[in-house]
Amino acid sequence: MKKELFYGKGMNLIQNDFPDIYEAIVGLNEAVYTGKTLDYKTQKLIAVAIVASHSDDRAIERQIKSAINELGATKDEIMDVLRIVLLTSGMPRFVKAVKILYDVEKK
Amino acid sequence: MKKELFYGKGMNLIQNDFPDIYEAIVGLNEAVYTGKTLDYKTQKLIAVAIVASHSDDRAIERQIKSAINELGATKDEIMDVLRIVLLTSGMPRFVKAVKILYDVEKK
Amino acid sequence: MKKELFYGKGMNLIQNDFPDIYEAIVGLNEAVYTGKTLDYKTQKLIAVAIVASHSDDRAIERQIKSAINELGATKDEIMDVLRIVLLTSGMPRFVKAVKILYDVEKK
Amino acid sequence: MKKELFYGKGMNLIQNDFPDIYEAIVGLNEAVYTGKTLDYKTQKLIAVAIVASHSDDRAIERQIKSAINELGATKDEIMDVLRIVLLTSGMPRFVKAVKILYDVEKK
Amino acid sequence: MKKELFYGKGMNLIQNDFPDIYEAIVGLNEAVYTGKTLDYKTQKLIAVAIVASHSDDRAIERQIKSAINELGATKDEIMDVLRIVLLTSGMPRFVKAVKILYDVEKK
Amino acid sequence: MKKELFYGKGMNLIQNDFPDIYEAIVGLNEAVYTGKTLDYKTQKLIAVAIVASHSDDRAIERQIKSAINELGATKDEIMDVLRIVLLTSGMPRFVKAVKILYDVEKK
Repeated sequence: MKKELFYGKGMNLIQNDFPDIYEAIVGLNEAVYTGKTLDYKTQKLIAVAIVASHSDDRAIERQIKSAINELGATKDEIMDVLRIVLLTSGMPRFVKAVKILYDVEKK
Repeated sequence: MKKELFYGKGMNLIQNDFPDIYEAIVGLNEAVYTGKTLDYKTQKLIAVAIVASHSDDRAIERQIKSAINELGATKDEIMDVLRIVLLTSGMPRFVKAVKILYDVEKK
Repeated sequence: MKKELFYGKGMNLIQNDFPDIYEAIVGLNEAVYTGKTLDYKTQKLIAVAIVASHSDDRAIERQIKSAINELGATKDEIMDVLRIVLLTSGMPRFVKAVKILYDVEKK
Repeated sequence: MKKELFYGKGMNLIQNDFPDIYEAIVGLNEAVYTGKTLDYKTQKLIAVAIVASHSDDRAIERQIKSAINELGATKDEIMDVLRIVLLTSGMPRFVKAVKILYDVEKK
Repeated sequence: MKKELFYGKGMNLIQNDFPDIYEAIVGLNEAVYTGKTLDYKTQKLIAVAIVASHSDDRAIERQIKSAINELGATKDEIMDVLRIVLLTSGMPRFVKAVKILYDVEKK
Repeated sequence: MKKELFYGKGMNLIQNDFPDIYEAIVGLNEAVYTGKTLDYKTQKLIAVAIVASHSDDRAIERQIKSAINELGATKDEIMDVLRIVLLTSGMPRFVKAVKILYDVEKK
């Protein structure tokens, strides 16, 4: 999968200054996003689920944007992901991620 | 979705002793696992991802068993989930979940 | 307990767009905040403790505000909660929650 | 508050081998469990809530035992605590703590 | 070790209003940062690692600043810490901490 | 650094069944444990700190064993690491890791 989809701009800094880390992350990324058994969109939705359950604002926004813009995920699909976050990780993390989803959508 | 798929036996105790909590959980469960936009198996794989990223042994085992036995998830599909756990949550959580997957499979 | 006390504004969006989730959350909320054995204020202080130990800024602010404004919790009571956060969850989470408590108080 | 209530046996090892850490923990413990504004039992219930939301088996068992045996907390009071865990931290952590509560009770 | 290195300004409020908590934290701090077996800088780098793995923005910034300004840690040393965060805690936490490191450096 | 030091036996299964993941992890591991700026032992102590702050029993045991047996870390050095865990992550995680350290030492 094209690496642009999975990296924020912080990766450019790492590529310049720490190319060994950058290469390792590229290799890791390729082994993670295979798109073979599960397709890319499903894997991306799983990434949305995990970062939402970790309650990290910037990562949630980045993953939701990428799911919508690059992989065509719909709002309903992402809400189906966040339903599982509600059940497994509780209300505060669910509410935070829902708010970010709505903010991303409005832009 | 049949609630048997999502509850461990601890729920029987709750049903007897705290029926108000039990009813709320049943209602929550029904609102979470809709199987409409994303199908049940995808939602279950997302639950596997989240509990694996939380590093909770019993929940990981229960969710992986349920994904395999009730929803027909394959080992390769679950490994595709755990690849995302490796990238987003690190090696220790990935290795733990892989070990549980192999243990579940052997039984 | 009145649901206004426990929901942020994100819940209005959910009520409109995903009424099945909203109903499940209302049911869950009613089963959680019973005010029978432990009174509402004690339960709310417990919610403050948990979100503080999870280090989620917005949830901490919302829970502390609700504890003070709706349930009459005092600064000393909330500090007694945060003392336990210090012991069980460490300095960074304690310091963050204390800072939010002081910010809420000044407003 | 008597320190016996809050320490597991691991503390004896620390007292012998690392007395400076032991003294600091005793001092911390005294500043945390004041029993002034909130009483000891309420503070202990808050500790139960936090360790349950962290999903740490041994700590949950130790805190629930201490709440019941030393401070007279009832099963219903602890379930009122765990209701908040369900809402704020999700099903897997709630179910785990409920199971430990029932196991402690049977002994 | 001088306590100024380890406290943010929130500690002044605590010192004034809750001197018992303040004294306990000072005692804890002295027992924690001994500089005997491991030197101060190594202990500080360990603190950077832990707060980075907890994904707490303000704590990461404060610890990185303190490591650089007070203990002379270099960017390469902190990146060596964050490499371990990448392996043990995943990409989102690594990327966040790297971004904060670069922001601290530019100031 | 020799990869044996950093992998549990779960990695053999992954090497056989999912060689692409295995290769990515080897590459990641080499980029993480460089031993250039910080030496291997310091990096390993940082790994101990992070897994202890995550409260994962098996990972704590594996990392402590590896620090002692492969890199010659002493009990006092590991206690200096765990002091930081106490301050930043709270008592339950500190006590758990201390207990594992003593258990590893006795074997």
